[in-house]
Amino acid sequence: MFIPEGFLFSAVSCGIKNEGKLDLGLIFSPYKLTSWGCFTKNTVKAAPVILGKRLIREPITKGILVNSGIANACTGKEGIRRAKLLLERVAQRLKVPKDTILPASTGVIGEQLPLEKIIPKIEDLIKALNPENYISFAKSIMTTDTFPKLVSKKTKDDIVILGIAKGAGMIAPNMATMLAFILTDAEIPKDYLKKIFPKFVEKSFNRITVDGDTSTNDTVYMLASNLKPIKFGKEFENHCLEVMQELAHLIIKDGEGAGKVIKVHIKGAKTKRDAQVFAESVANSLLVKTAFYGEDPNWGRIFSALGKTGIEFKVEEVELYINNVLWIKNLKMINPEEKIKKEMSKDNVEVLIKLKEGKISYEVLTCDLTEEYIKINAHYRT
Amino acid sequence: MFIPEGFLFSAVSCGIKNEGKLDLGLIFSPYKLTSWGCFTKNTVKAAPVILGKRLIREPITKGILVNSGIANACTGKEGIRRAKLLLERVAQRLKVPKDTILPASTGVIGEQLPLEKIIPKIEDLIKALNPENYISFAKSIMTTDTFPKLVSKKTKDDIVILGIAKGAGMIAPNMATMLAFILTDAEIPKDYLKKIFPKFVEKSFNRITVDGDTSTNDTVYMLASNLKPIKFGKEFENHCLEVMQELAHLIIKDGEGAGKVIKVHIKGAKTKRDAQVFAESVANSLLVKTAFYGEDPNWGRIFSALGKTGIEFKVEEVELYINNVLWIKNLKMINPEEKIKKEMSKDNVEVLIKLKEGKISYEVLTCDLTEEYIKINAHYRT
Repeated sequence: MFIPEGFLFSAVSCGIKNEGKLDLGLIFSPYKLTSWGCFTKNTVKAAPVILGKRLIREPITKGILVNSGIANACTGKEGIRRAKLLLERVAQRLKVPKDTILPASTGVIGEQLPLEKIIPKIEDLIKALNPENYISFAKSIMTTDTFPKLVSKKTKDDIVILGIAKGAGMIAPNMATMLAFILTDAEIPKDYLKKIFPKFVEKSFNRITVDGDTSTNDTVYMLASNLKPIKFGKEFENHCLEVMQELAHLIIKDGEGAGKVIKVHIKGAKTKRDAQVFAESVANSLLVKTAFYGEDPNWGRIFSALGKTGIEFKVEEVELYINNVLWIKNLKMINPEEKIKKEMSKDNVEVLIKLKEGKISYEVLTCDLTEEYIKINAHYRT
Repeated sequence: MFIPEGFLFSAVSCGIKNEGKLDLGLIFSPYKLTSWGCFTKNTVKAAPVILGKRLIREPITKGILVNSGIANACTGKEGIRRAKLLLERVAQRLKVPKDTILPASTGVIGEQLPLEKIIPKIEDLIKALNPENYISFAKSIMTTDTFPKLVSKKTKDDIVILGIAKGAGMIAPNMATMLAFILTDAEIPKDYLKKIFPKFVEKSFNRITVDGDTSTNDTVYMLASNLKPIKFGKEFENHCLEVMQELAHLIIKDGEGAGKVIKVHIKGAKTKRDAQVFAESVANSLLVKTAFYGEDPNWGRIFSALGKTGIEFKVEEVELYINNVLWIKNLKMINPEEKIKKEMSKDNVEVLIKLKEGKISYEVLTCDLTEEYIKINAHYRT
């Protein structure tokens, strides 16, 4: 795994999560970082989201402090106070100006951060900072994730981009119950970052859905240590987007209870909004998701999910493909049911829906819906 | 059970459903019926919906022909042709003008009605017509329903209102994968029916959701045999609405895999649209529905579901009640968790969310989400 220069990682257990699991993580840089962030569009915003939105506007960033297990959402002014206090303590101990550490939290909503458990661990957290500790850090941000999520790429001009994310549930466009941190050693002016980063987020983390439940805490930060000049701008941008799209894919792969990753690809819509609404309606339909789990080629559910958007389209002219195998044309099954079932049973499935309304495409990643999702979410806190 | 005068019922098995289950039903009247209907807002409309929308505009109705097992949706022109042919055969055999029998279908999307199985049964269907056969009729319209759904009431002026419905899955406002037939022996001019019926539908069947998946086939008809004058108009209207609301409740009670009925009641919203969007967001949230299944008082999921609507509201001022027990105020649990858990464990749960934005209320009925829903829907056709 390529690791960008200029970053240190650490993680400790504060006892917020059970069984001594890592639940407090820190990314820190001895250099001056450029940063930007994108956040949930849920109007109920967690304290770290409210603070993070302000702190990314500071000229210099030095790191990110993340806790898992408690979301610090629906915690009112006390939640803000506690988050601020932790950030200040960490900044103090790191001997960096306050307002240079960005916050992120994930976990149960409605509980206050247990300062008495976290503060005594700050010393250990800072002592453990090390360029090699990225896996521990990735583990410390997990909730119901079953594996840590890291993706990295190196460009021709030796620039490294590393993405670390967590996902699992409450994942829906704008953005997902997810945290993702994109780190690079490229030299990136803040204005450039502000311009490109939201575009990449729109094409990666805003195109995934596990359960249609947008979280209160979604946060994606990008940090640049500015150690290497970018020579090939386009190549850098492509690699960046790839890192983010691959992370988004990993989040869906590890969606709560998910057995397969399903790409819903709309082509031939009239407008971008239509294409997006169609794609999200299919991707969030419980009946579509359970049909994929059951590997039941019940294509009517896909058509019904298109129609429940209320957007008019020529039903008879829709072409439906699965992994490039023609499934439905003129409302008739073209390939035998057994062949479609076989495609449905794969780990990665692309559902391509060709409309005849216009020329706009849109893609969303989702997963199937299984009994396991219910089990996880019926008893998450217990 | 009160049965309105002037209606005959029958049901037979054509072999569309397995194991000789009833799958073709008929309601017929020797009298001239007044009728009206409300239909799905899904833009993918089943053939019987397309035909039904036209036929309710005819001055006289004589009955309803319903089949279950196949939805006759996404079946194109051939689907329309087959539905028409069946209606004509039945009308012919009943010696009534064509265009006086209303159609309804429910079941799998994308398959054509097997005329060769249905036509030979029309004779038996008509022979079986009888005022007592309403239970058989109610059974013949079931798909994944576990019990037939009938509600009836009698007014002081001896007018009877009988409602028969089926529901189970693909239930979402506007309207539900549901069929419902409201029959009365009252004398009702068509213009009056057109005025009151959609209002009642809006306050009953449009306020329920099992899975957010609005079907292609939702159809609610009201038929009046005009045998009894209405003396107490208000009382008749109240009874009518009650029949429809009780049927809506039965549909949720029998929602696929459902263990409990949950009423989501929003108070204090700024506009009706806000109140409705809030209520539906909570009622459709997989995380809320699984929390109720697990009887886990994870109130953060309710707040998050309110926020994911993107509508601004004062989070700190929300009061949350469960069965009139104060649960959350100022973002704090007021009653002990055990007490809330006990309320959550009941078969009927009311979640009251008091906002401080305005004066508008809205209610939606939903159910919890269980492994059983997944099992039913992963393997519906097999």
